[in-house]
Amino acid sequence: MNLSLRTFCRIIGLAMLVIGLSMFPSLIVAVIYKETVSFLAFLGTILFAAVCGFFLLWFGQPSTQHLKVRDGFLIVTVCWIVSALLGAAPFMLSGSIPDFFVAFFESCSGFSTTGATALSDVEILPKSILFWRSFTHWIGGMGILIFAIALMPSLGINGQNIAVSEAPGPTLDKITPKMSDTAKALYTTYFVFTIVETILLCLGGVSLYDSLLHTFGSVGTGGFSDYNNSVAHFDSVYAEMVITFFMILSGANFNLYYMSLKDGISSIFRDAEFRFYLFIIGASTILIAANLFFSGFYTSVGQSLRYSVFQTSTIITTTGFATDNFDLWPTFSKMILILLMFIGGCASSTGGGIKVVRILVLLKLIRRGIATRLHPNAVVTVKINGKNIPSDTVSAIANHMFLYIAVVFISTILLSLNNFDMITTFTSVLTCIGNIGPGLELVGPAANFSIYSGPGLFLLSILMLAGRLELFTLFILLTPRFWNPNH
Amino acid sequence: MNLSLRTFCRIIGLAMLVIGLSMFPSLIVAVIYKETVSFLAFLGTILFAAVCGFFLLWFGQPSTQHLKVRDGFLIVTVCWIVSALLGAAPFMLSGSIPDFFVAFFESCSGFSTTGATALSDVEILPKSILFWRSFTHWIGGMGILIFAIALMPSLGINGQNIAVSEAPGPTLDKITPKMSDTAKALYTTYFVFTIVETILLCLGGVSLYDSLLHTFGSVGTGGFSDYNNSVAHFDSVYAEMVITFFMILSGANFNLYYMSLKDGISSIFRDAEFRFYLFIIGASTILIAANLFFSGFYTSVGQSLRYSVFQTSTIITTTGFATDNFDLWPTFSKMILILLMFIGGCASSTGGGIKVVRILVLLKLIRRGIATRLHPNAVVTVKINGKNIPSDTVSAIANHMFLYIAVVFISTILLSLNNFDMITTFTSVLTCIGNIGPGLELVGPAANFSIYSGPGLFLLSILMLAGRLELFTLFILLTPRFWNPNH
Repeated sequence: MNLSLRTFCRIIGLAMLVIGLSMFPSLIVAVIYKETVSFLAFLGTILFAAVCGFFLLWFGQPSTQHLKVRDGFLIVTVCWIVSALLGAAPFMLSGSIPDFFVAFFESCSGFSTTGATALSDVEILPKSILFWRSFTHWIGGMGILIFAIALMPSLGINGQNIAVSEAPGPTLDKITPKMSDTAKALYTTYFVFTIVETILLCLGGVSLYDSLLHTFGSVGTGGFSDYNNSVAHFDSVYAEMVITFFMILSGANFNLYYMSLKDGISSIFRDAEFRFYLFIIGASTILIAANLFFSGFYTSVGQSLRYSVFQTSTIITTTGFATDNFDLWPTFSKMILILLMFIGGCASSTGGGIKVVRILVLLKLIRRGIATRLHPNAVVTVKINGKNIPSDTVSAIANHMFLYIAVVFISTILLSLNNFDMITTFTSVLTCIGNIGPGLELVGPAANFSIYSGPGLFLLSILMLAGRLELFTLFILLTPRFWNPNH
Repeated sequence: MNLSLRTFCRIIGLAMLVIGLSMFPSLIVAVIYKETVSFLAFLGTILFAAVCGFFLLWFGQPSTQHLKVRDGFLIVTVCWIVSALLGAAPFMLSGSIPDFFVAFFESCSGFSTTGATALSDVEILPKSILFWRSFTHWIGGMGILIFAIALMPSLGINGQNIAVSEAPGPTLDKITPKMSDTAKALYTTYFVFTIVETILLCLGGVSLYDSLLHTFGSVGTGGFSDYNNSVAHFDSVYAEMVITFFMILSGANFNLYYMSLKDGISSIFRDAEFRFYLFIIGASTILIAANLFFSGFYTSVGQSLRYSVFQTSTIITTTGFATDNFDLWPTFSKMILILLMFIGGCASSTGGGIKVVRILVLLKLIRRGIATRLHPNAVVTVKINGKNIPSDTVSAIANHMFLYIAVVFISTILLSLNNFDMITTFTSVLTCIGNIGPGLELVGPAANFSIYSGPGLFLLSILMLAGRLELFTLFILLTPRFWNPNH
């Protein structure tokens, strides 16, 4: 390994301090609602994180050594795992979620902005614990933006930022100077979205506490709610519209908002990925609404559209809120939702899944394949936004797709040892690796993941992290080649 | 269109004559069993095929014009559709299967060597009709060998024959001289397999009629049986072993047998695809047997292995016989079978599916993807049998995979308008496009496709042909580009 242990410790120490710091808002919530046990649980975790973090910082004094690309994979993965473990501590210390596997599952689900829960009844949990659970979405969403925009290109995980010409491509050791501009714009956008959505929800009569929690869930495209029946609890068309709007915004490429500051709002709509994303949402909404209406599931067109647009948006953006138990919908509607689960959000968004731009490239690849067969000697290029996609980016995208499908298959087979029905097993894997939240059947929107055994929950927790880290980041660590010093 | 109408007519005329000729054995069976109505149905179809065929031959007098690659797609597709229509005629004329959609489904299922049936009770059909139904497997199997080995390379559908160096690559207008050698070896192998299996089954006490029908089903990897409970009817370990052996042989690359005549039997086992194919069969058999035994589905290891090896072989070779209702098996076993449905047989076999060699290349692509991320500047090639795969072949394989998945998705969504459960809908599509036969749930081995509406059956019929023609051959005809004379 070329990685200096000191640099490694330094970065992990920093991560622990950040997670510790991010527990302060939850500490304050515990004070406000006078939840002593939770207060002590947060305080204990913060102290532990501070002690460990400062020790690691002290041990790993600044080093001038440059990090190599391969070190990046290890650091990123370890940072997420450490965050997930630290995040699970308050759940267990407060006694709210005593089981380790369940607590780790909730924490992974939070940080990875998945929103799947293994709790049968969330409404009995202390307010501060629920606040922390949702706040992990918000931190995770921020974390993934940094990862997607700043780190991924330097890790060679290209094929995501191809849609945006100005995508920064710093190397890992030069992040700070180059990133500052984009990062600032990013944070600002993320903060603005958070504040505006919270205010809009409050204006609709939702309490500040509920507004904050559901805002964390939507801008982070997470999906945790403090109600067992999720957003359906409010039964408010206004709240649903606000949440839908911000889910769609957060599932789009955040670089677009940065660019629109320079080039105007209309530049967003010139982006091929964003247009395809809106097209998919529109087409799916109409198809599902038609299916719901004509199959007699709802008697009015308005109702069909209302539930269709919310569920379509919550699934494609990989948020995972629910206003209806779509597990009861006709098969046609459910099949479209499964397709959306595969697609996921846009590149450089807080959403998960395969990503819209990759699907766009794959569709263009199929078209190119047909053209090549008609004219074997013709050179047909794949273009996005009028620019050629380099062939190594195209193969990186194809690779990603194959790995995604392979992991879904193998995980489904492993998870099927729990012997639940095939739809439950398959959608559990799909919804976790895609960072969505609910699946179908026994893990549908009206159910939860408590059915699974400890090892089953652990597998799903790892899948959530793997999906969040674009698979390769984590799976590369499992190859012998990675640990072989001669390579 | 550059295609001369005369050449086109000539080839279609020839195809009609071949199909007409191939009905003679069924005619003889009708005589033997004194089935007058069926006899007349076959006679009528043969006369019709002869009249049309000779007219088309007369109309399309020999032309010196060379065919272009694009014409090949149209001719191949039209030939298969004409065969399927002609093949359906005896079913309807004899009154055995009066409904057009069902008759066309059975005929497509036969010629495409799928073996899915929309008949609730096959045992009530006349013997000669059942003979014809199974014989279409045998003709289809022969047809696909010609298609895979001789035609596909010239249509630019490479990526199948890469495993075998001696794969012939004639251009469409030079087929006859170059093909003769391979074709002869191919026919001989196919005939030898047919004769040996028939004799072996007869030796096991199976009647000649049943032996022939199940031999057609196995060497063609079709799967039609004249019994409602398929091969389970015989309840004979010997018959199951014979059929398993020939299914596995027929699911392997036929070029290997040709090569082994020159290089010895051991050369077969040096082929990377064949070894991977045997590995998948072995691993799946053991995993499923373990699952069946430890879940208490069977009480003896022997029974678990017996049913596991047959079902594994029948699914991966895309034959589709059954000796057990695997729909009742535990989820783990069923998930493995679904994976095998995707994989399918080897290249240049009578089997369907994605093909083992393509899966092998995809797995190597994933490994290459990881290597590339560790060493961004390294050039890592994909090798099969020690030889580099050209990058355009690799992208053709990737393309095929994407198109396969896209078609499965879109077809499942379309078929779900029939509103059966998701597993039924999904496995119906998967089993038809992969030319397998039975699916799960309502189309499981103990059930059939009669649940579907006419349009549903028609969609599945087209999928069987599309799968058989490696998708691109048929789908290329659906593009405007194909019909545009300026392209």
